[in-house]
Amino acid sequence: MTRAGVIYPSDRVTLREVGLRDGLQIAKSQPSTEAKIAWLEAERAAGVQHYEIGSFLPATRFPQFADIDAMIAAGERLDIHSAALTLNERGAEAAVQTAIREMVCVVSATEEHSQANMHRSREAAVELVGKVVAMRDAQAPEKLVNAGIAMALGCSISGNVNPEEVVRLAAACLEAGADIVGIADTVGYAGPKAVGALCARMEKLCGSQPFIIHLHDTRGMGVANAAAALDSGARVIDASLGGLGGCPFAPGATGNAVFEDIVFLSESMGFTTGIDLDRLKDVRRIAEEAMPDDEFHGALHRAGPPKNADWQAKTLV
Amino acid sequence: MTRAGVIYPSDRVTLREVGLRDGLQIAKSQPSTEAKIAWLEAERAAGVQHYEIGSFLPATRFPQFADIDAMIAAGERLDIHSAALTLNERGAEAAVQTAIREMVCVVSATEEHSQANMHRSREAAVELVGKVVAMRDAQAPEKLVNAGIAMALGCSISGNVNPEEVVRLAAACLEAGADIVGIADTVGYAGPKAVGALCARMEKLCGSQPFIIHLHDTRGMGVANAAAALDSGARVIDASLGGLGGCPFAPGATGNAVFEDIVFLSESMGFTTGIDLDRLKDVRRIAEEAMPDDEFHGALHRAGPPKNADWQAKTLV
Repeated sequence: MTRAGVIYPSDRVTLREVGLRDGLQIAKSQPSTEAKIAWLEAERAAGVQHYEIGSFLPATRFPQFADIDAMIAAGERLDIHSAALTLNERGAEAAVQTAIREMVCVVSATEEHSQANMHRSREAAVELVGKVVAMRDAQAPEKLVNAGIAMALGCSISGNVNPEEVVRLAAACLEAGADIVGIADTVGYAGPKAVGALCARMEKLCGSQPFIIHLHDTRGMGVANAAAALDSGARVIDASLGGLGGCPFAPGATGNAVFEDIVFLSESMGFTTGIDLDRLKDVRRIAEEAMPDDEFHGALHRAGPPKNADWQAKTLV
Repeated sequence: MTRAGVIYPSDRVTLREVGLRDGLQIAKSQPSTEAKIAWLEAERAAGVQHYEIGSFLPATRFPQFADIDAMIAAGERLDIHSAALTLNERGAEAAVQTAIREMVCVVSATEEHSQANMHRSREAAVELVGKVVAMRDAQAPEKLVNAGIAMALGCSISGNVNPEEVVRLAAACLEAGADIVGIADTVGYAGPKAVGALCARMEKLCGSQPFIIHLHDTRGMGVANAAAALDSGARVIDASLGGLGGCPFAPGATGNAVFEDIVFLSESMGFTTGIDLDRLKDVRRIAEEAMPDDEFHGALHRAGPPKNADWQAKTLV
């Protein structure tokens, strides 16, 4: 089995909690390192094992990720699978020196967004994936390299996105040595039909290997899109606690798909998650206290799961 | 074509806005009749044609529906398809005297809920449907009789619900003369898999005739469940403006599926709704002003639809 297949087994659903990365990207509050570690501890106790915990970005511009080393250390202590963004060579050079378990590179689905946002062409972004893979191979062969295709389901600049292009770029990233690729509805443009269709293409591309779907709830489609993704063979889904995250192009908009609601969805569809929804409430309390200026979303935490009916998937045997 | 087939054509999606009925059932605020009519006018201008506008219930116990006559008059002036709950013979006797276009009867999916909530057996509830049909036939043959199966996807008292029982009760209601039947996830227990499976059975039962799916967002599954329903042949979906409604069994919980988000979902899935999302914002403003003590939900209204990408379904030809 490939190393990605070990971390993200194809016979079950893996939920990646990205609140401590994407959820903090444009947050108003600055949770302390202590609060972030308490969040991680409580969420690990609730059964969550896969996280994005920060970004290797200049601390001057992104102070919310300045404590990446402390977060990685906490992650190791808790034995979670930790991932962090490495958006350029400098970030990757720093990352390979740490105990981070997964380095996440980003390639834009459209040339317009790539140039405007990353100041490089898509081909240069794919090349960077190859460079990160080479660094990893030389210095930290146990790490995963993840390549995410941003704006894969709609672009804030060029609007509609051609799925053929997304699959072509994902294939190029795999070709460059990425262990796993992801497709992101970065600005929440898609409905379940488009998500299902793109996941079906990705499954064809990846075969028995996992791929990631990264969803935003900007237009309320987060859970529906996750359901369509699961129906179309996706087995790794990104979501954030309380739907933290927002959208830089739509001030006041909702953020990532809501982690708690996606746990309930997965269980309802027959995929056991190993996550305790009651204990997730504790995590939410910690995060809400640490981020008083940010809005938390979702429905499940208000009502709790049905008390008198079967809703949990049968445990994997 | 049957009369239900004329009002709810099988070749398109019809969204029923139930905010003025289910949305007010346990609301904290008491919107004035003027505000409710302004809501109806603005929503009609946005292209919404199908509504539940109230209940025929004793005004002493349900003052929020005391103005049902004024609401029906407004509905006629606006030429909308208006529906109202008729939960007992007295309600139906009153309803047939008015210009209401659809009388909605309710049958519980479980005997336990029927006895506890309606103080009658399920068979007696089905008999009542027959009586309402007879009244309609004798006095107001142009009206529709709608029979909704409450707790069809999970019951606050007995938990799991047998889909066979739901289909049996729906068939009995059709047998009793109902023009259209509905299935309601009254307490928001279901995920998309269960909703899709029940809708597929209902489609088999109803053939080319429409049936209604009534969804709550209590656990965040509203939009995903609507998507599954559409995938499984449902073409009539209930939702409420801003997700008004709540759940009597889970204080603080979210309410009905969010109308605005379901409009976006439908369009994204290729079903044209004829509804102008921009103008729905005006309706929301009116309702929020009139219901200051209630929480409004949803995501679409925050971000608006994508500005630079195709998201609307092609118009029906």
